[in-house]
Amino acid sequence: MPLDSWSDGETRSAIHDFVDRVTDEGGPDYVEPAARVAVFDNDGTLWCEKPMPIQLDFTIRRLAELAAEDASLRDEQPFKAAYEKDVHWLGAAMVKHYQGDDADLRLLMGAVTRAFDAVTVEDYDAQVVSFFGDASHPTLGLPYRGCAYQPMVELLDHLDDHGFTTYIASGGDRDFMRPVAGDLYGVPPERVIGSALGLTYIDEGTTTSLMYKAAMDFFDDGPEKPVRIWSRIGRRPILAVGNSNGDLPMLAYAGTDTTPSLRLLLLHDDADREFDYVAGAEEALATAKRQNWTVVSMKDDWSSVFAGGDA
Amino acid sequence: MPLDSWSDGETRSAIHDFVDRVTDEGGPDYVEPAARVAVFDNDGTLWCEKPMPIQLDFTIRRLAELAAEDASLRDEQPFKAAYEKDVHWLGAAMVKHYQGDDADLRLLMGAVTRAFDAVTVEDYDAQVVSFFGDASHPTLGLPYRGCAYQPMVELLDHLDDHGFTTYIASGGDRDFMRPVAGDLYGVPPERVIGSALGLTYIDEGTTTSLMYKAAMDFFDDGPEKPVRIWSRIGRRPILAVGNSNGDLPMLAYAGTDTTPSLRLLLLHDDADREFDYVAGAEEALATAKRQNWTVVSMKDDWSSVFAGGDA
Repeated sequence: MPLDSWSDGETRSAIHDFVDRVTDEGGPDYVEPAARVAVFDNDGTLWCEKPMPIQLDFTIRRLAELAAEDASLRDEQPFKAAYEKDVHWLGAAMVKHYQGDDADLRLLMGAVTRAFDAVTVEDYDAQVVSFFGDASHPTLGLPYRGCAYQPMVELLDHLDDHGFTTYIASGGDRDFMRPVAGDLYGVPPERVIGSALGLTYIDEGTTTSLMYKAAMDFFDDGPEKPVRIWSRIGRRPILAVGNSNGDLPMLAYAGTDTTPSLRLLLLHDDADREFDYVAGAEEALATAKRQNWTVVSMKDDWSSVFAGGDA
Repeated sequence: MPLDSWSDGETRSAIHDFVDRVTDEGGPDYVEPAARVAVFDNDGTLWCEKPMPIQLDFTIRRLAELAAEDASLRDEQPFKAAYEKDVHWLGAAMVKHYQGDDADLRLLMGAVTRAFDAVTVEDYDAQVVSFFGDASHPTLGLPYRGCAYQPMVELLDHLDDHGFTTYIASGGDRDFMRPVAGDLYGVPPERVIGSALGLTYIDEGTTTSLMYKAAMDFFDDGPEKPVRIWSRIGRRPILAVGNSNGDLPMLAYAGTDTTPSLRLLLLHDDADREFDYVAGAEEALATAKRQNWTVVSMKDDWSSVFAGGDA
């Protein structure tokens, strides 16, 4: 059923109205299928990002593995925190980041590029698949692979059924999402846009491969999102879905004065079923109000939250 | 008709055999549709690149326009050569490039980034469409939009009919190809991979846009091709088509020891209908011979050359 996990109300109607308008051949707002491009943020928009982004948990486990293999790393942050399961240090790094102090987060990002240096894209893919095979959310009582939002999965399906092409445009690492985006969201790897580690081409005569470099290529957040969307798609989206300040440029870029557009901003206001927070979304919420974008209340607009069943 | 402009012979059979094998459900070489990824170089592979790349002609016209507007540019290369239609200087720049001296070509590339600085992606698109509306090849007696190779257009169609997804992976500028790749090849913008100028996101309150910066983002040639193919697609191709040394890594990357693959290298050996040259392809031809890749002879394997009719 289309949008079954969405409660009856203005938000659900806004989505149905928009899809009806742009698919009404002969109507004033008709948009050809090729131009029906929809972009979705991932962390906090398609899947849960609290108490920490899923990728951060994956990364910490990898850092702990490296520290287990190499004792000399155990005195060095963030390896030390990862090895000692020092949730306090890691949590503080995220809090400081939201307060504008990125020193610890940069330490963490530096460790990430070191942790996957010289790993091939296929090996990384296998590590990600293995992680999602058994890792669980620390508080929700769900496996991570059950932490996708069921209403968003239904929205992706609904758009797909109406000739849209959906893309993920996330600040998270592109190659961390690709191995699972098909199962979780029905989005194939070529439609996953995200941050990227640099890659090196290796030719060993009879075999060729691509390996990650110990350096970021780009961080797909804020004003970089429209740039990466254009680079990949070559079209301006007409629908964008996000949840934070980092999604603002992507939301603003979806549509022009003369084309129909829909912007959805997910508000996390559901402490019972998920989390209740606005930190990192203040500016986005203010802009949504000013520009009449559609704010999705998790609490009021979603009758169920998780694809894996609510806890 | 499939591959109608291909002459009967080993090359045409090699293509048919490969497509048959990977689409034979239950056969040992069957490849699922999602993994049937084919990548094509553009200049000299899908359209004519002699006596100069089509994009170079477009650029020279733009430089001449700028020099016509600003007299101070007329003493400075490459604006001077463009303004004076000094084909000799421009030709020499290309010859020097093939001989390993890139000084003049770098001057030219520097001017390109200056020529399109602060142009929006939509304006650039319109300039490209306008150029292809009337510009003609200097010697073949064809409009540039008629300079696509008909056999390659048929090959793209044939692959499309058999569940492949085709991409252009070119050293040429991505956004120069996108506006015409649909009409010429049936390839939509999201499947055009190429070199990229840097982009800046501009938010002017009620309108948003993307503008080119006076700097390259990356040059999609040689070992950068597999990197950009993975970045965009997230899969390893099983079929690659190229014509020069810059395509070698892309050709080598298409396939592994355990997966079926087809590599096609186009040999320009047809002075009567197109051009006869191996400069810039020596290493690719030697590798093709050593690795048993399929060399396509324009002269022997193609019964007609141009989509716009042979001259």
